[in-house]
Amino acid sequence: MVAAAVKWVGGVDGFLGLIDQRRLPGEFVRLQCRDIEQLYEAIKTLTVRGAPAIGVAGAYGLVLAMQKLDTSAFAEASVFAKATPDKTADKRCPMPDALECLKKAADYLGSSRPTAANLFWAMDRIKSKAEDFVAGRARANLRELQEIVLGEANAICQEDVDMCRQIGENGEKFIKDGAGILTHCNAGALATAGQGTALSVMFEAHKKGKRFKVYVDETRPLLQGARLTAWELKQAKIDVVVICDNMAGWLMKQSKISAVITGADRIAANGDSANKIGTYSLSVLAREHGIPFYIAAPSSTFDLSIKSGDQIPIEQRAADEVRFLGNEKITPDGVEIYNPAFDITEARDITAIITERGVIERPTPKKISEHFK
Amino acid sequence: MVAAAVKWVGGVDGFLGLIDQRRLPGEFVRLQCRDIEQLYEAIKTLTVRGAPAIGVAGAYGLVLAMQKLDTSAFAEASVFAKATPDKTADKRCPMPDALECLKKAADYLGSSRPTAANLFWAMDRIKSKAEDFVAGRARANLRELQEIVLGEANAICQEDVDMCRQIGENGEKFIKDGAGILTHCNAGALATAGQGTALSVMFEAHKKGKRFKVYVDETRPLLQGARLTAWELKQAKIDVVVICDNMAGWLMKQSKISAVITGADRIAANGDSANKIGTYSLSVLAREHGIPFYIAAPSSTFDLSIKSGDQIPIEQRAADEVRFLGNEKITPDGVEIYNPAFDITEARDITAIITERGVIERPTPKKISEHFK
Repeated sequence: MVAAAVKWVGGVDGFLGLIDQRRLPGEFVRLQCRDIEQLYEAIKTLTVRGAPAIGVAGAYGLVLAMQKLDTSAFAEASVFAKATPDKTADKRCPMPDALECLKKAADYLGSSRPTAANLFWAMDRIKSKAEDFVAGRARANLRELQEIVLGEANAICQEDVDMCRQIGENGEKFIKDGAGILTHCNAGALATAGQGTALSVMFEAHKKGKRFKVYVDETRPLLQGARLTAWELKQAKIDVVVICDNMAGWLMKQSKISAVITGADRIAANGDSANKIGTYSLSVLAREHGIPFYIAAPSSTFDLSIKSGDQIPIEQRAADEVRFLGNEKITPDGVEIYNPAFDITEARDITAIITERGVIERPTPKKISEHFK
Repeated sequence: MVAAAVKWVGGVDGFLGLIDQRRLPGEFVRLQCRDIEQLYEAIKTLTVRGAPAIGVAGAYGLVLAMQKLDTSAFAEASVFAKATPDKTADKRCPMPDALECLKKAADYLGSSRPTAANLFWAMDRIKSKAEDFVAGRARANLRELQEIVLGEANAICQEDVDMCRQIGENGEKFIKDGAGILTHCNAGALATAGQGTALSVMFEAHKKGKRFKVYVDETRPLLQGARLTAWELKQAKIDVVVICDNMAGWLMKQSKISAVITGADRIAANGDSANKIGTYSLSVLAREHGIPFYIAAPSSTFDLSIKSGDQIPIEQRAADEVRFLGNEKITPDGVEIYNPAFDITEARDITAIITERGVIERPTPKKISEHFK
């Protein structure tokens, strides 16, 4: 398995270590992320990416935000006393109230990528833990709160590692010996704190000695499939073939694909799932060819507050991602580009959703609600 | 309209002028093609591309082949006399018998891209014209035969120009005012000697004052959509939006596409059509969303000798087309690539085939056979 894509180094004064995913597979570079502006950029530019990894990174982002609070202001008094806020003191965290600071930091980080549910889920967990801590006491020092926040971020990270493995164990039965598996984008170790979601299923099947081939959509525009998924599978010694996105349907037609397995960025209460642009087309093509379509994702990917996929916000990304290949401009000057980062796969086209809790076959609102009981 | 992609310059001793399509839209460069090895390379590397353009280029390729015959050998005698062939005299055209030379040249050029029907069709026309000429006379000089070959190549070229315009006129009714049209790859002026096939339909609709928007699949791996189709439509002042191939289904789902129009490289007697890889997926997705799917192609694209698409050979192209973006390698070392150039769209998913002869709605073997009567 690949070295951790997201890893906290040190105690409350530590930093967030990230693999720079923009530079793979050419170079393996670790970055030290030391403030939330840097993390925002890292998420926005897909230096760190994948819904679960973004969730864990967001949790640690709140640890970074807490580091920037001016501890001298709270040395004697309660952190949560109604001191006059000095809004100009620190531009990166203008509110010297710790809870307010957490909330602001979460709003800021949340605006980096609006589709991934796990980011909001993880930061909500941190906020709620901090609120609980504050509610119980009249006075507290900042370091204590920082420890609480770091502790919760570490818990989220460790849970992600465990969830990934469990997803793999729950899903590996769907990979038959001799299978041809199609995946899209990267839902591997690089997309999580653990061994991935969709790829975890493949890693666990491989561990059991099953032989199969994975066809990987290159995944335009940012080529996460060609660059990252191919790299992970190659490292794991799993047979991998890279194809262009437009070849997947033709492979299905030729009976080379026996299952499609992808991750997800947000799943609505009815099972509709947002994932990397192109997943919707794969789900329709899979149905057309009678091929099962699986989504592997931790339960933190579910957003039960929304009924269906229509309500999932779809991030639109910069035209230049499509317009340029490296430094070369491939489209004529002045031509419009459409570049949505995600699309929504309908629940009716999903054979099963695999989570760390188990498998939801043919997802319906009722089955999903029961899954969380 | 774009300057001719394929154009003969001069008489029987002239050369073939080609726009170097690999360098568009960045640079507009004209090449002078002076022998069949150079033309083979130009076709193989997609310097010249598009089934009808390759057909015209192949016809002129046979003119180039005839230039290389050693005329001194035939100065006095009949070109077709049973002179002892000197197989070593000219490596590029080892058989000093003119008809044999034509046949060898045609076989050689035909091996450059096995899928395009028009290439074989055009060269067969030249060969058959040469055979007719030879059959009628005991003696002839080479120059006379060269004139015959050039005359037929010019006729094929002029017919292509006329066919393109007629295809546009026959098909423009399928573009409604306010439409969103999806196209794939490039079936424009650059793909023909005239104003294109699928794009001709759009050019003619535009001439009539209809307003519509064309979504262009970038068309991986070689990006003919992003580079060439966007360039042609922009020059024609037609609204154009470039998308990645994996976004087309999601656009359909959002009701932004009212029709899909593509070209074709070979059409079987039952209507099954080979076109750029990815077209098959679009045809399935169009059916799923109730969107009409049109193919625009000259009748020379039909290969009535084959019953169905299963028999159309699919060209597999080099892995490096997918592996590299410019000079940057995007996949990890040693990862396998699958790179078919074409796929087959089933006749049942084609709303109509538009040719210069008219429109074949819901193509069947019977309707196609009647179309050629």
